[in-house]
Amino acid sequence: MSKEAQQRMEKIVSLCKRRGFIFQSSEIYGGLNGFWDYGPMGVELKRNLKDFWWRRNVHEREDMVGMDGSIIMNRAVWKASGHEETFSDPMVDCRTCKARHRADQLPQKDGTPYCPACGGRDLTEPRAFNLMLKSYAGPLENDDNLVYLRPETAQAMFVQFKNILETSRKKLPFGIAQIGKAFRNEINPRNYIFRSREFEQMEIEYFCRPEDGLALTDYWLEERLKFYEDIGIPRAKIKIHDIPDGERAFYSKKTYDLEYEFPFGVSELEGVAYRTDYDLSAHMKHSGKPLEYFDDEKKEKFVPHVVEPSAGVDRTALALICEAFDEEEVTDEKGNKEVRTILRFHPRIAPVKCGIFPLLKNKPALVEKAKAVAAALRPHMMVFYDEAGAIGRRYRRQDEIGTPFCVTVDFDTIGENGPEKVDTVTLRHRDSMQQERIPIAGLRARLEAAIF
Amino acid sequence: MSKEAQQRMEKIVSLCKRRGFIFQSSEIYGGLNGFWDYGPMGVELKRNLKDFWWRRNVHEREDMVGMDGSIIMNRAVWKASGHEETFSDPMVDCRTCKARHRADQLPQKDGTPYCPACGGRDLTEPRAFNLMLKSYAGPLENDDNLVYLRPETAQAMFVQFKNILETSRKKLPFGIAQIGKAFRNEINPRNYIFRSREFEQMEIEYFCRPEDGLALTDYWLEERLKFYEDIGIPRAKIKIHDIPDGERAFYSKKTYDLEYEFPFGVSELEGVAYRTDYDLSAHMKHSGKPLEYFDDEKKEKFVPHVVEPSAGVDRTALALICEAFDEEEVTDEKGNKEVRTILRFHPRIAPVKCGIFPLLKNKPALVEKAKAVAAALRPHMMVFYDEAGAIGRRYRRQDEIGTPFCVTVDFDTIGENGPEKVDTVTLRHRDSMQQERIPIAGLRARLEAAIF
Repeated sequence: MSKEAQQRMEKIVSLCKRRGFIFQSSEIYGGLNGFWDYGPMGVELKRNLKDFWWRRNVHEREDMVGMDGSIIMNRAVWKASGHEETFSDPMVDCRTCKARHRADQLPQKDGTPYCPACGGRDLTEPRAFNLMLKSYAGPLENDDNLVYLRPETAQAMFVQFKNILETSRKKLPFGIAQIGKAFRNEINPRNYIFRSREFEQMEIEYFCRPEDGLALTDYWLEERLKFYEDIGIPRAKIKIHDIPDGERAFYSKKTYDLEYEFPFGVSELEGVAYRTDYDLSAHMKHSGKPLEYFDDEKKEKFVPHVVEPSAGVDRTALALICEAFDEEEVTDEKGNKEVRTILRFHPRIAPVKCGIFPLLKNKPALVEKAKAVAAALRPHMMVFYDEAGAIGRRYRRQDEIGTPFCVTVDFDTIGENGPEKVDTVTLRHRDSMQQERIPIAGLRARLEAAIF
Repeated sequence: MSKEAQQRMEKIVSLCKRRGFIFQSSEIYGGLNGFWDYGPMGVELKRNLKDFWWRRNVHEREDMVGMDGSIIMNRAVWKASGHEETFSDPMVDCRTCKARHRADQLPQKDGTPYCPACGGRDLTEPRAFNLMLKSYAGPLENDDNLVYLRPETAQAMFVQFKNILETSRKKLPFGIAQIGKAFRNEINPRNYIFRSREFEQMEIEYFCRPEDGLALTDYWLEERLKFYEDIGIPRAKIKIHDIPDGERAFYSKKTYDLEYEFPFGVSELEGVAYRTDYDLSAHMKHSGKPLEYFDDEKKEKFVPHVVEPSAGVDRTALALICEAFDEEEVTDEKGNKEVRTILRFHPRIAPVKCGIFPLLKNKPALVEKAKAVAAALRPHMMVFYDEAGAIGRRYRRQDEIGTPFCVTVDFDTIGENGPEKVDTVTLRHRDSMQQERIPIAGLRARLEAAIF
């Protein structure tokens, strides 16, 4: 990471803590490596992201339905999917100090790897270390009760394919969408919320006839690029990596990685993978249950193929923050220069849609009116009422959390300067800092048009 | 359970499977005891419930902020909260067959308890069996890496109290709200999704001055009753249990249980507990970090007290389904009597808001128009387009998933019967089955007014 990128990342992390986006999990107990909490602003950002994904991919599409599967599933699922056997990183143990490390990340001296904890060279041969978190569901800690926390949400959609097909009466092509938590015992969690041990996914399994798989992979790549554009990450900022033959999973005929340039480097936001019939066939074989589709028109039974657009909630949220973060030099009314920090979020995903201020807090008529404006908007969008401090400082606070609009109730609003501007307010735009005068009656429609 | 109640419950479970509300987790592998998946209808029902809870408790209130904490937290949290030591059920082991059972649920013969698995009487003394699911986060399965899946979401709100207080600049009284998964290793998961091992909670920690605790407990009881009323569970159906002295947790000065009469018996939906300063004080003591509040006006520092309204997502969803489930005898056009099954959901929480049908599917002008109506509504609400089968059957299908409104595009709509009714549709109401004629242009506003 360049020094500049590092400074930028530090500023982002500091802002996220200071403004209530992201905290270390269990911070007062020293935190927990690889686990994060979302504060008041972070939870709204994530909600907006997930809700828009759901609306775009489930509600607005006739060919998609949602589901919400349990995090803990029958262990047989992970045997069938191959995760129990192969979802692992290579590890070595140090025989001297008993520490465990990733074999491919060991430091070397004179070409010989050594233990970064104690310096010892007496290391075991590399062994596969499974990344699934284990637990036991049931009264005894034995093999019968062994379960895993899912390392991806996808498998529930394959396992429930038949139930969903039958109850939703969909025809191919159609998809299942799911948002939920997943867990991976990363040996080295890193890059803030980018690679953590607990994370959230937004995944689609789009089922189709075999001959449509490749074309639909390109179709979904395009859909996903549009999605990122619609939440404020321009197409030009997404690097598309067409994974070449020989580097894809053996069952995949096509895989695109969608990458974003974070301050810590270019990293994957999402994968769009054509997984053929690998998953359904594996579950059909292991469960002994039929998972075929019968095509009424062609009178033909077959195992559907699947295209999987799989995105990470946390890393998308981080990309949104990184993309939105900006600093600019501004001059205040007294001619002093200062740095304005802004999160230039798309209004659709901004945690707070509108800040609402009385010009002065010691003037009851202003306060009362501003509170009434806030109360009228509150059922329809996240608003923030603020009466503390100079109006300029209140704007800056909203800039820092990315609020696209601020409304100020002043003496014109309450008719103290004559009747012409009564019941109008100042609407201030975050990015341009420009202000306009609009009637309160039109406020809700105006804001909703911008944030929907 | 009475035979009638049992039959009703069986019908509900069957409908939930048949219409895609609830499936067994990992069903094709024989399921997993205590774990459930939500299908296309179930996930929408849960989303509507959670979204309305969030809107009512977070967005519509100036005194509340949200958060989203990790499921896995530092183990020290559960030491401080007392869960590691005392969150347990009494268990005995059978020395003969090694089975483990709840001590208070053992069968007896001649007054002597015996093992229900093998009949043996050689049982261990009862021991405390902790209900938290364990795992290990990190490369080694040792005490340093031992973690628990949270058995409740509440603790994250205590642990992050200071961070949230500082970043949100709230003053007492104010609350933190959170929705998320929790896990309990129930020895005997039962009553469908009511008591499972993986479940979802909607919890509020409402912080206040000590002298306000009791009054706010009553306030929150009332708020929560209003909430249930607003999602379709009338106040008269909620039994309020004021837990008497001596039966409450030792730190609680007041606890109300809100109970609902499920077919399997009266069971708890929610608890509203005045927990005093127990939680913050415990975390202050164990972490060594200050968790006090400084009151600017009274110039006084103290540990806030807290009122906790804690509701279950899954059990509320189940109550909604049980409350909505109805059967009535109706007579069709040919004079035949049949039973109509209906889920009488409040429009606000119904998974699908509007069914949209062309009268006939082999008439392109009808199909095209109906699809256009569906497409126009789809970004704003969950709609279901259906062209398959007789119109009466299509209505019945929507009745079974609780869709409050259905719209039919007929020959009047497309102007085949003259210009008067062009661009009007039939709006059919689920509960009364009454139909009215309304213009397409007014449809969205009409539906939104009913479902908001």
